[in-house]
Amino acid sequence: MIVSHQNSIDLINVAKQTRLAAMKLAVLSTEQKNQAIEAIASALESAKDEILSANIADCEAATKAGIAKPLYKRLQLDEHKLRDTITGVRNVGKLADPVGAVQIHREIDTGLVFKRVTCPLGVLGVIFEARPEAAIQIASLAIKSGNGVILKGGKEAINSCEAIVKAVKKGLSQTAVNPDAVQLLTTREETLELLKLDRYVDLIIPRGSNSFVRFVQENTRIPVLGHADGICHLYVDATADIDKAVTITVDSKTHYPAACNAIETLLVHRSIAPQFLPKVATILQELNVELRGDKLTRDILSSSFSNIETATEEDWETEYSDLILSIRIVDTLEDAIAHINDYGSKHTDAVVTENKEVADTFLALVNAAGVYHNCSTRFADGFRYGFGAEVGISTQQMPPRGPVGLEGLITYKYQMRGDSHICATYTGANAKKFTHQDLPIDG
Amino acid sequence: MIVSHQNSIDLINVAKQTRLAAMKLAVLSTEQKNQAIEAIASALESAKDEILSANIADCEAATKAGIAKPLYKRLQLDEHKLRDTITGVRNVGKLADPVGAVQIHREIDTGLVFKRVTCPLGVLGVIFEARPEAAIQIASLAIKSGNGVILKGGKEAINSCEAIVKAVKKGLSQTAVNPDAVQLLTTREETLELLKLDRYVDLIIPRGSNSFVRFVQENTRIPVLGHADGICHLYVDATADIDKAVTITVDSKTHYPAACNAIETLLVHRSIAPQFLPKVATILQELNVELRGDKLTRDILSSSFSNIETATEEDWETEYSDLILSIRIVDTLEDAIAHINDYGSKHTDAVVTENKEVADTFLALVNAAGVYHNCSTRFADGFRYGFGAEVGISTQQMPPRGPVGLEGLITYKYQMRGDSHICATYTGANAKKFTHQDLPIDG
Repeated sequence: MIVSHQNSIDLINVAKQTRLAAMKLAVLSTEQKNQAIEAIASALESAKDEILSANIADCEAATKAGIAKPLYKRLQLDEHKLRDTITGVRNVGKLADPVGAVQIHREIDTGLVFKRVTCPLGVLGVIFEARPEAAIQIASLAIKSGNGVILKGGKEAINSCEAIVKAVKKGLSQTAVNPDAVQLLTTREETLELLKLDRYVDLIIPRGSNSFVRFVQENTRIPVLGHADGICHLYVDATADIDKAVTITVDSKTHYPAACNAIETLLVHRSIAPQFLPKVATILQELNVELRGDKLTRDILSSSFSNIETATEEDWETEYSDLILSIRIVDTLEDAIAHINDYGSKHTDAVVTENKEVADTFLALVNAAGVYHNCSTRFADGFRYGFGAEVGISTQQMPPRGPVGLEGLITYKYQMRGDSHICATYTGANAKKFTHQDLPIDG
Repeated sequence: MIVSHQNSIDLINVAKQTRLAAMKLAVLSTEQKNQAIEAIASALESAKDEILSANIADCEAATKAGIAKPLYKRLQLDEHKLRDTITGVRNVGKLADPVGAVQIHREIDTGLVFKRVTCPLGVLGVIFEARPEAAIQIASLAIKSGNGVILKGGKEAINSCEAIVKAVKKGLSQTAVNPDAVQLLTTREETLELLKLDRYVDLIIPRGSNSFVRFVQENTRIPVLGHADGICHLYVDATADIDKAVTITVDSKTHYPAACNAIETLLVHRSIAPQFLPKVATILQELNVELRGDKLTRDILSSSFSNIETATEEDWETEYSDLILSIRIVDTLEDAIAHINDYGSKHTDAVVTENKEVADTFLALVNAAGVYHNCSTRFADGFRYGFGAEVGISTQQMPPRGPVGLEGLITYKYQMRGDSHICATYTGANAKKFTHQDLPIDG
């Protein structure tokens, strides 16, 4: 117990240090922040050998521990990957500064004016798994958005992360940004402590498995940016072009099945199912996709395909993250929408139809961050949306929602300036009226 | 236990009905929603006698139960208050429709275009205390923003709320809005159940005491819009104009001390304290403000004022909501900022100074939704900001922050339209490039 108490005091001190550094970082100019980002890039280049050696040590330890192959691939950081990541750092430097934007500029009365101005959130807590280069990406996004960041990498990547953060801090030490703005935690106990620091940490970004994200969401009072499930749907309406439906189904399922924006369930209108299903099933099975269908689907496919399992209630609620697709036949567009709103995760859902009215209804009534017509759900991604950098995809109902760029790392404040203005002037019998006049936004 | 189980099933059914009605409401035109709001106003006028009688019954019961006087005043709904509230409903009709605004319109590639469009949140859960007219205000804001709403009024106001919601539903029954969009809960057990309905309710707005709001925040996974504490500060810098400082202090403390935007603590620079404090203390004591000071404050004031209590650590953390003010003397601007960031509630804090640099530093470094220069903290209010209607004041770090208008009741979705566009086209060796071209926002 003494150790645990000591740990939480240490972590509170780390968080306080980060907050102090973040306060100073918050008011730096765009140029100063960009210089710091360039310094990070250069420092990482200089520390290349050290980082790659550390990563080799991590990989050797992981091999000894019998790590799973996909995890090993994510852990591995070769020269090529490191170079690309450093290019990514420099690209963050080129992004527009999200801080200091005037969103509202309004006169309340003569001489009393307010502005709503964007500002950093404060301190971010980012918990990620094996990929060590995530530490680099996140640190550069944090600096660009004026935030301090407390990083916690996967335990497999501990040597890599330590080498990376050492280089980042060394780079920052030459700049206006205090190196305390970027911190690294290394133990699981610290992660649990971090989730309790709602006085010091303003946003938690968990990157990892669904169950991990859900654990974080359920065990902190700090706002969480991210998503647990990505149960995306494609609905092929009676009015669909069958070739388009096949093309979009295949891309949405197979282009990268482990991604959160891949579809898990295909909904098909009853009237088009006999024509569409055999075509798409043939191609999907060639691509090794396991199909699970409701009774009607299996009836239609049973003559040509012997291996279609029955889809159960559990299937509609499952994110396979794998080459598996559940198929359900619906009687109407409304049934499709109801299924999606019941079982979906508000991530991204698409309709294939040549009928504009059907498309409009689907896009209006499906409750998801992304509602698509005649295109693949795989477009749900910050880079593809043109946001430059993605800090995560949110499936919450409240903004920020969907793929979130740097704007997810900022908030705003109302700055009011007056000259002895008081509220008593505007109340009571002789109340003065407010002018409420919008002023030029750059004024 | 059986009763409780039955209750939660009933409430789930109510929530499902509300959600269905809200789905249809979400896609109505501005005109249809405004017609519904006018119908509410007319129905309330027609039901005037019934509502006022119901309120008299509530007031009589409250008197018998020995209700406190301020609570009684809030409970009381006379003809005048009701008329003003109905005028408020018609004003909501005149507000701009927050739904359907295009925030981003972007071409990803030829023929592949997305829009970020504002849309309603879904279903609101609003829990309020004695004031029955809150039910009217909230229902009209919910309809205008396209949301369903589940209302829970204070138990003292049960007859009034039932009469009001009956009239609202009667009004809606003549319009495109299904009356199920507005629901009333009447028991405390239902409030607790409501907080568990994160599948059906998208936002909880608690209106009431600090402890009640904190209870809600700590007992639901649904996002909560509101604030527990309003610990606001005024800092009088060495460079302040003393007359302005006195004027602003008096307004910020005494104009409406029960409001969340009234100040609780006055911070004074050491060098100006001997001139400023006796002046402001004289006026504050004439206005019956109890003063509590740190040692230096008491030293300065002791010759002329015998009744200044000692301010303790607890005072810096207390929202008095009353005619009490704690005073602390600081050595520097930085000390003032540190005190505010340590003890404040991120609501609204102000500085009095004639020095632009001091003002700029304060406005940049104080972490609060509102940071003011030379004006009263009492301006922190949606109506005064020109938002037309206020759904609450948020002291969270994430947006929406500060006074929140209708925009706090909406979210957005990304609507993507293509023509068989798939992601495979944009990856791999022959990857096509995205065009990422912004299009006219009204296009």
